[in-house]
Amino acid sequence: MATALAQLHERLAELADLQHASSVLHWDQGVMMPDDGAAQRGEALGTLARLTHEQFTSARTAELIEAAALEAQALDPDSDDARLVRKVRHDHERAIRVPAQLAADLARAASAGHHAWVAARAADDFSMFAPHLRRNLELTRAYVDCFDGHAEAYDVLLEDYDAGTTTATVRGLFEQLKARLVPLIARLRDQQIDSSVLHVAYPVAAQRQLVGEVVRRMGFQDSGWRLDDTVHPFATSFGSGDVRITTRYDAHYFPTALYGAMHECGHGLYNQGVADALQRGWLARPDSLALHESQSRMWENFVGRGRAFSELLARRVGELSGGALDGLDGQTLYRAVNAVRPSLIRIEADETTYSLHVILRFELEQQLIEGRLAVEELPDAWRALMAEYLGVEVPSDADGVLQDVHWSEGLIGYFPTYVLGNLIAGHLWECAHTALPALEGELAAGEFTSLREWLRHNVHRHGAKYTSVELLERVAGAPLAVEPFMNYLERKLSDVYEVTLA
Amino acid sequence: MATALAQLHERLAELADLQHASSVLHWDQGVMMPDDGAAQRGEALGTLARLTHEQFTSARTAELIEAAALEAQALDPDSDDARLVRKVRHDHERAIRVPAQLAADLARAASAGHHAWVAARAADDFSMFAPHLRRNLELTRAYVDCFDGHAEAYDVLLEDYDAGTTTATVRGLFEQLKARLVPLIARLRDQQIDSSVLHVAYPVAAQRQLVGEVVRRMGFQDSGWRLDDTVHPFATSFGSGDVRITTRYDAHYFPTALYGAMHECGHGLYNQGVADALQRGWLARPDSLALHESQSRMWENFVGRGRAFSELLARRVGELSGGALDGLDGQTLYRAVNAVRPSLIRIEADETTYSLHVILRFELEQQLIEGRLAVEELPDAWRALMAEYLGVEVPSDADGVLQDVHWSEGLIGYFPTYVLGNLIAGHLWECAHTALPALEGELAAGEFTSLREWLRHNVHRHGAKYTSVELLERVAGAPLAVEPFMNYLERKLSDVYEVTLA
Repeated sequence: MATALAQLHERLAELADLQHASSVLHWDQGVMMPDDGAAQRGEALGTLARLTHEQFTSARTAELIEAAALEAQALDPDSDDARLVRKVRHDHERAIRVPAQLAADLARAASAGHHAWVAARAADDFSMFAPHLRRNLELTRAYVDCFDGHAEAYDVLLEDYDAGTTTATVRGLFEQLKARLVPLIARLRDQQIDSSVLHVAYPVAAQRQLVGEVVRRMGFQDSGWRLDDTVHPFATSFGSGDVRITTRYDAHYFPTALYGAMHECGHGLYNQGVADALQRGWLARPDSLALHESQSRMWENFVGRGRAFSELLARRVGELSGGALDGLDGQTLYRAVNAVRPSLIRIEADETTYSLHVILRFELEQQLIEGRLAVEELPDAWRALMAEYLGVEVPSDADGVLQDVHWSEGLIGYFPTYVLGNLIAGHLWECAHTALPALEGELAAGEFTSLREWLRHNVHRHGAKYTSVELLERVAGAPLAVEPFMNYLERKLSDVYEVTLA
Repeated sequence: MATALAQLHERLAELADLQHASSVLHWDQGVMMPDDGAAQRGEALGTLARLTHEQFTSARTAELIEAAALEAQALDPDSDDARLVRKVRHDHERAIRVPAQLAADLARAASAGHHAWVAARAADDFSMFAPHLRRNLELTRAYVDCFDGHAEAYDVLLEDYDAGTTTATVRGLFEQLKARLVPLIARLRDQQIDSSVLHVAYPVAAQRQLVGEVVRRMGFQDSGWRLDDTVHPFATSFGSGDVRITTRYDAHYFPTALYGAMHECGHGLYNQGVADALQRGWLARPDSLALHESQSRMWENFVGRGRAFSELLARRVGELSGGALDGLDGQTLYRAVNAVRPSLIRIEADETTYSLHVILRFELEQQLIEGRLAVEELPDAWRALMAEYLGVEVPSDADGVLQDVHWSEGLIGYFPTYVLGNLIAGHLWECAHTALPALEGELAAGEFTSLREWLRHNVHRHGAKYTSVELLERVAGAPLAVEPFMNYLERKLSDVYEVTLA
């Protein structure tokens, strides 16, 4: 007779298999599928999602969880199995609160909203999108109402993207960030940095070579990874032996492909680094988006756009550019890719202004969900905050409130994880430097092994075992704060602008 | 309240979705997946197969079938729904006879057998493979024992690959074929045909261009198809809007890629041509391998290696060959690709000798399953038949009994469908020419639309609605015979060898 824990493992392994299938279908849809396959693919994904939900929320799964919980009482509370039971129970309790009808309505509204958003953005017409946003908000409020015990509605939403983090905590951190970033950006925005070196013709074949070399330094291996092209880059994985990342190439702006690939490779390393013991199980997929983003942003910005690696990178960029960037030096590249330039579009923003794009969205979506802001007031509210935080005038809704896909699909509560990722990366970067005194020298040589292995040991191998709060406590011995990230950023900007900051 | 038929449709649509997912995972495994993903992919495919089987064989599905069967009594027996019920009931009755344990044992033995076969073939050591073949045969006999009412064991196996066709029928047809092919091949084998024109360096990029042009003439469209490279070419589809084919390129032998792609595109057209009304249902996937092979072989051999198309093809081959094949003419190409050359390997065999490779396997696997031939006697029996039918001496088991994957995975009863496909193609070719008097002229101009649309109307759109026997009766008004294929082949060989045959 198998133990309850063994039976629970078996059930969860099946769910992992269904999740594996869904993930492959999603990857294929984004990377390989011809257009005419969309309708049937949507049906197949819908059926897989429903079967997964049914199996997970079934009475049988509930029994197995409760029986396993009894067995787990005898275990070290920090053991894999004890943590597994805690995590599964948490997720199960949340999943069973949402009626199947509401889940289906949310999925349908997300799909309709996405289509409407594509059309509205193309037409630069917010009114085409407004009814769908209203519907998404209405359903999201119904979703919030399925839960109790939270201090504010937004807590329920945030829990899905970074469990254990409260809105009050995020608000406090973001207020501190804003107080430091807004004046900093205002001070630097008129300083001249020459970034023309980035905007040159750079053959895509040579960019591919460069990207391939850099991600291989990071840990990409042909035996267990793929790198493909997509318009919207992303990372996914189907177990630690099959990690897929994508990037896109701009023939006149190489940072898009290079830093984008480093970002996605950071996500990929996290997925790949989960311990073997957790594979094909409920803890195998790290699900704190804040932790995930801490990895991608650290590799993209802290390493990729860092001073140490810029020297080697500049040389290689020059060698591969076909003459256009011959003689590029590290400091020129470093200054160009870190220049502070307030702009309209979040995903094109520099590392310094990026956080304010996110904070703006975090504030607006809270007001929307609580009914303090009406949908029709949103475009003006957006314009006002862009002017206040970034000094940027928004010329059109297409480049303003309609720029991101998230709200169209009902993804409310997702945005703050991008900045929480920055803040966590700040802590981890400090800890890694303390643990690895030779790190800067290694990064300058393009030697990424120590950093990757440190991250694997301290972050990746745990999979979904810990919340971001717990993990940071384990690694840094401290709660999340803005100082590590801001200290890192101000040091960088002092170098870039050759001024003394803070 | 939904009718029983509507409820059955819904249930079968879910099964189609699971099948869709499995097919995508298989395609990805064969075309995209990095090696290290194999273990988790195997688990995911296993779980999907088990869930599909459980849902299909469940009591609920049985109830729905019986209730739908009552409703269907009021329908035209040839209507989609009446045929659907008949087909589902047939498949369900077969599926429930096989115990889950036996199904799992078969799957495990197939996997182990495949691995052992790869190693045995590489080592040219039949003894490494023999125990696995014994195990596969033992389990296959247990599988046969799950059924009753058949005249001989092999009928049960054949039913899985071409339902409604009996071993006695196949045996009769194959005896006639053998009686005509063996002396024909003996007569032609020493005639000289110059095929050196095929064995020249032909840049792969130019071959890709050629393949792309030809499959587009056949019906390949970027909006609903993919063409990729694999070592083992295959075709699959996920609904009519997403057809995937693969081919492989030999830089010194262009027929591999070109005719291989036409073969797979023939399979793809069949999948794509299934009527919209049958999509996402139990009849959406044509499952007679004999019918499927009739399509691939017709496009590969009847069209691709036919006299009419060879003229245009020769010209284009010349233009794209980079000078190596400048001035190639249609008759030279036609003769080269249809030369009769008895050889060791089935998948490299010419159209004339191919059938004897298959007949040999058909005869040996019957003897094996009935215990009339012991596994250890198989290599010698293989050698004896190769000498008798093709006059070929087999120098090694690697190029003999170990050359094909099928038996290693327990696929016994599969081989004859390749030749049944040839025979069905012979009938369809005759009927198409009767219906389309201008066909040869169109093929000469590379105009494939009439033929494709004729096939779609007469074959493709029906999906799995009819067995191969029923379909042939509908289209040709006759039972399967060897004459149409042999007449076609003898006409071709008369042209190629410039002699009078038959």
